[in-house]
Amino acid sequence: MNLPDRHISLAHGNGGRLMRELIELLFAKHLKNPTLDVQADAVTLPLERHGELLFTTDGFTVQPLEFPGGNIGSLSVHGTTNDLAVSGAIPKYLSLNAFIEEGFEVAALERIIISIAQAAKAIDVAVVAGDTKVVRRGEGGGVYLATTGIGIKTTEINLSMSQIQPGDRLLVSGPVGDHGIAVMLAREQFGLRGDLMSDAASVLPFTQALLDLPGLRFMRDPTRGGLATVAHELCRGTGLRVNLDQSAIPLRDPVVSVCDMLGYDPLYLACEGRVVAVIAADQADQALQRWQALPGGELARIIGETESNDPFVVLHTELGGSRILDELEDDPLPRIC
Amino acid sequence: MNLPDRHISLAHGNGGRLMRELIELLFAKHLKNPTLDVQADAVTLPLERHGELLFTTDGFTVQPLEFPGGNIGSLSVHGTTNDLAVSGAIPKYLSLNAFIEEGFEVAALERIIISIAQAAKAIDVAVVAGDTKVVRRGEGGGVYLATTGIGIKTTEINLSMSQIQPGDRLLVSGPVGDHGIAVMLAREQFGLRGDLMSDAASVLPFTQALLDLPGLRFMRDPTRGGLATVAHELCRGTGLRVNLDQSAIPLRDPVVSVCDMLGYDPLYLACEGRVVAVIAADQADQALQRWQALPGGELARIIGETESNDPFVVLHTELGGSRILDELEDDPLPRIC
Repeated sequence: MNLPDRHISLAHGNGGRLMRELIELLFAKHLKNPTLDVQADAVTLPLERHGELLFTTDGFTVQPLEFPGGNIGSLSVHGTTNDLAVSGAIPKYLSLNAFIEEGFEVAALERIIISIAQAAKAIDVAVVAGDTKVVRRGEGGGVYLATTGIGIKTTEINLSMSQIQPGDRLLVSGPVGDHGIAVMLAREQFGLRGDLMSDAASVLPFTQALLDLPGLRFMRDPTRGGLATVAHELCRGTGLRVNLDQSAIPLRDPVVSVCDMLGYDPLYLACEGRVVAVIAADQADQALQRWQALPGGELARIIGETESNDPFVVLHTELGGSRILDELEDDPLPRIC
Repeated sequence: MNLPDRHISLAHGNGGRLMRELIELLFAKHLKNPTLDVQADAVTLPLERHGELLFTTDGFTVQPLEFPGGNIGSLSVHGTTNDLAVSGAIPKYLSLNAFIEEGFEVAALERIIISIAQAAKAIDVAVVAGDTKVVRRGEGGGVYLATTGIGIKTTEINLSMSQIQPGDRLLVSGPVGDHGIAVMLAREQFGLRGDLMSDAASVLPFTQALLDLPGLRFMRDPTRGGLATVAHELCRGTGLRVNLDQSAIPLRDPVVSVCDMLGYDPLYLACEGRVVAVIAADQADQALQRWQALPGGELARIIGETESNDPFVVLHTELGGSRILDELEDDPLPRIC
């Protein structure tokens, strides 16, 4: 298999020699670890038998497949392991499904797989099971991925929306909307250019940093639908009002510029490496200090609070006004993750 | 959400209200179980802490999405849980990824989800995590699915190719190629019609029936690439010759007819509800009797044996001749699962 010259054919998905070569020479080569067995129907997970087992899955269809700060491969590792991290777990194992379009460049596929391997290694997660399917030319977007993750959480940690109290504080671990705007700029359809990088990254250092705070109620990563959607989920899940302080929400200048130009609201744009935490008011400053001390956490902020009032998301503007943030209806930027 | 009149739009994948409605009114409605929480980032798996945890994943791109005997939904449950079953495990939990094409009919999606629910219920498996993505019109094949499964296996059961000895017998649990031909006929591109049903089903009753036989070495379900591909995997994994007795391999008449007409070899066609077992010669008859006593197992047969000889797959014909079965190269029927 002479990788750089090759393109994926339907026969790479047929269960025969070419599929075996594709799996051995690309997937197994880069993702190898002691648990992965590409010949097996199922693998045994060597898990320590304390703590709870957490399970989550996510699909990825981002366009373009490669963007400043990442690609669909690293995104597929971060997206799924971040869902485990915000649940208070340590991610351990991933499975990987690839739906590859006939004609896709093998070299591009290899770059994506290498990114998966690097992202997984960085957080000590092993890709232990996988499957590839090849779809006809014109019936895929190059590559779609799905990753399913298993993590371990100590039973003492019990984060849930049901623990949120009126007066709790909302924190965000960094500026919002970078991923959405970086991917949009990479599409080039708007004729805009910029140096903005996606924030796509593991949030594990941020989630782990707060787990020993007894006032920590809940964490979530604002992906599709952005910060505003997480605020809406908090409203719906708690019956409380969520007040957001516009001037406190960290935003990078290029995000603000592009949003102003195109009429987007950055609060609805996807992040892929941020966390929103809800925490008791008396521990919010301590949590903030911990986050700000982490690499990439310098712009973490306390951005709002819950209130016993009609369940709306209310944005308090810098000029002293306020407006209700609606639930996302139209899709400002489809295929962002 | 007026289901029958609706088609999937890109906004059904954006993380906002429409996506929430799609998930609540279709996926959660039909798949509900105590562990599933469509609001959570990850779910805790309530697993008993004995036995080993087995993990597997599979993607599904079958065309057409609905065929006699099943659809992509039931297939996605059987395909993944069968991989756990042949490993000696009892499937417990599934995650589900759906990649849905813009414009897809909501009513068809609901039929697929109902099939997932029925197939899962029939084998007492719970779909506990999921994700939906919507791709642009012309960038998908209607629906692609990925399912990832977790099962439990008692530590005493240890099936592996490395246990296979020369002289072991190969059994198949039923006629081969039904799925491949049924899906092909459903495509209608060949102008053929037939009453053949896919064999897509859970193999759990068949795998469980043999687990207490100490001579059981290994099991595998012949899917993509069919029986011949499993035989090749046995060759490669053991270094032994695999002798297949052509006259013993069960084949339904319509499969033979269509294969004769179109020049297909049924041994390379996908099954989705059969098992190949490798077992010590002195327990092969006992295993066969158990399988034949099961519903759907009437046509189970002993079809071959391993031999200490050059590692080829050799088909012994009814007339006393023999020929080597090559590894699958061309794809006779792409997109069969």
